[in-house]
Amino acid sequence: MATQAGMIGITGTNARPSIAPTFGVENMLGTNPLTVGFPTDEDFPFMLDCATSITQRGKIEYYARMGQDTPAGMVIGNDGKPMTDSDEILKDLTAGKAALAPLGGIGDELAGYKGYGYATVVEVLSAALQAGSYLKMLNGAVDGKQAPYHLGHFFMAIDTEAFMGADSFRKTCGEILRELRASKKAPGEDRIYTAGEKEYMVWMERKDKGVPVGEAVQKEFIAMRDRYGLPYTFPFEQ
Amino acid sequence: MATQAGMIGITGTNARPSIAPTFGVENMLGTNPLTVGFPTDEDFPFMLDCATSITQRGKIEYYARMGQDTPAGMVIGNDGKPMTDSDEILKDLTAGKAALAPLGGIGDELAGYKGYGYATVVEVLSAALQAGSYLKMLNGAVDGKQAPYHLGHFFMAIDTEAFMGADSFRKTCGEILRELRASKKAPGEDRIYTAGEKEYMVWMERKDKGVPVGEAVQKEFIAMRDRYGLPYTFPFEQ
Repeated sequence: MATQAGMIGITGTNARPSIAPTFGVENMLGTNPLTVGFPTDEDFPFMLDCATSITQRGKIEYYARMGQDTPAGMVIGNDGKPMTDSDEILKDLTAGKAALAPLGGIGDELAGYKGYGYATVVEVLSAALQAGSYLKMLNGAVDGKQAPYHLGHFFMAIDTEAFMGADSFRKTCGEILRELRASKKAPGEDRIYTAGEKEYMVWMERKDKGVPVGEAVQKEFIAMRDRYGLPYTFPFEQ
Repeated sequence: MATQAGMIGITGTNARPSIAPTFGVENMLGTNPLTVGFPTDEDFPFMLDCATSITQRGKIEYYARMGQDTPAGMVIGNDGKPMTDSDEILKDLTAGKAALAPLGGIGDELAGYKGYGYATVVEVLSAALQAGSYLKMLNGAVDGKQAPYHLGHFFMAIDTEAFMGADSFRKTCGEILRELRASKKAPGEDRIYTAGEKEYMVWMERKDKGVPVGEAVQKEFIAMRDRYGLPYTFPFEQ
């Protein structure tokens, strides 16, 4: 919404506790995305929308379903060591016996304290401006029973018209992004992306053709329709 | 300055090109710190001030002086592989034959594209609001000759009084930080820090006692004084 109005948008949310602080093993911080959008002179905005953990639970569920190990460094166990068994990780995350590592990884060697710092920034911006809930208050349970929990979000919009004008901003921003994409590739890589570019490409493909749905999911959709007796034909049935 | 006034401070700067984009090998982005300060109800503010690369040149100079290798993953060579020989890295960084990896590391396995994304955010905020210089324009050289280069900075202050009041913000923020520090430590670790805490402890120690200066540096200081005939006695001479 901000970039469509020629503005810089900055937003984030706290979430169910998942990330362990640097030198800690307890799931304390949400995956806390710190999200920034810029208007550009291109067909799509710059849009960085990412968790401040290395990964989130959904990706580990994907590894588990594919029968793959989780790469070492994404998840820390109670013993302080990286965990890689995807099924075990999912169980231990639920039980509070494992936690996600912040961007930068476990410990301080590759600067995990920076990801931990940015996750903390998002936790504070999401909670402290509205005297809201934070950290373990977002566990979704009271006395072991499921309970509603109150996330906080924050939204910031900066009007580029108030500086050198929206056109000037769009142009400089676009040029930075084009120069990054045109820079020298690593051997074996044929493309450098900027944030939001892959998502835009996927959107261009799917906005007319729809989202590809695997056979197993197709069957679930059909079963659900039949269960509820809905008068609906799915595009994949045609 | 912002936190002293009860405000959130957000600032950053672009810098001489050092970081390679994800899937790239060319030094394109500055070490581009994204810096956030929060007022708290404690004796010191939350203060996250860190480069969006894993490390910066100064740390590699330190490794080189100590005769140590640079940990793999911090620096990418022109061949796309991590470099670890600290002396070689310093030479190649100067020659543009090596680049720093973004926070999250080389490639996308441990989400280096996030650090690359945040470095881009800082480059754009530092340049596009003031139609300023960016990327290779900050190389400090024109036609192979040293030339002045025009960095950009950005500064943002958010008045916590405009939300739930400064006292409420300080309290929630302080509680988040205290709970993080009090969370379960990894085996072998006895302390979890929050951003700005270590720097505050060092400041408390040094504000009266001064900065410890090694013998080699002491000799340089004395030689410099004598060279210029300055009427000065250093604290370490007493």
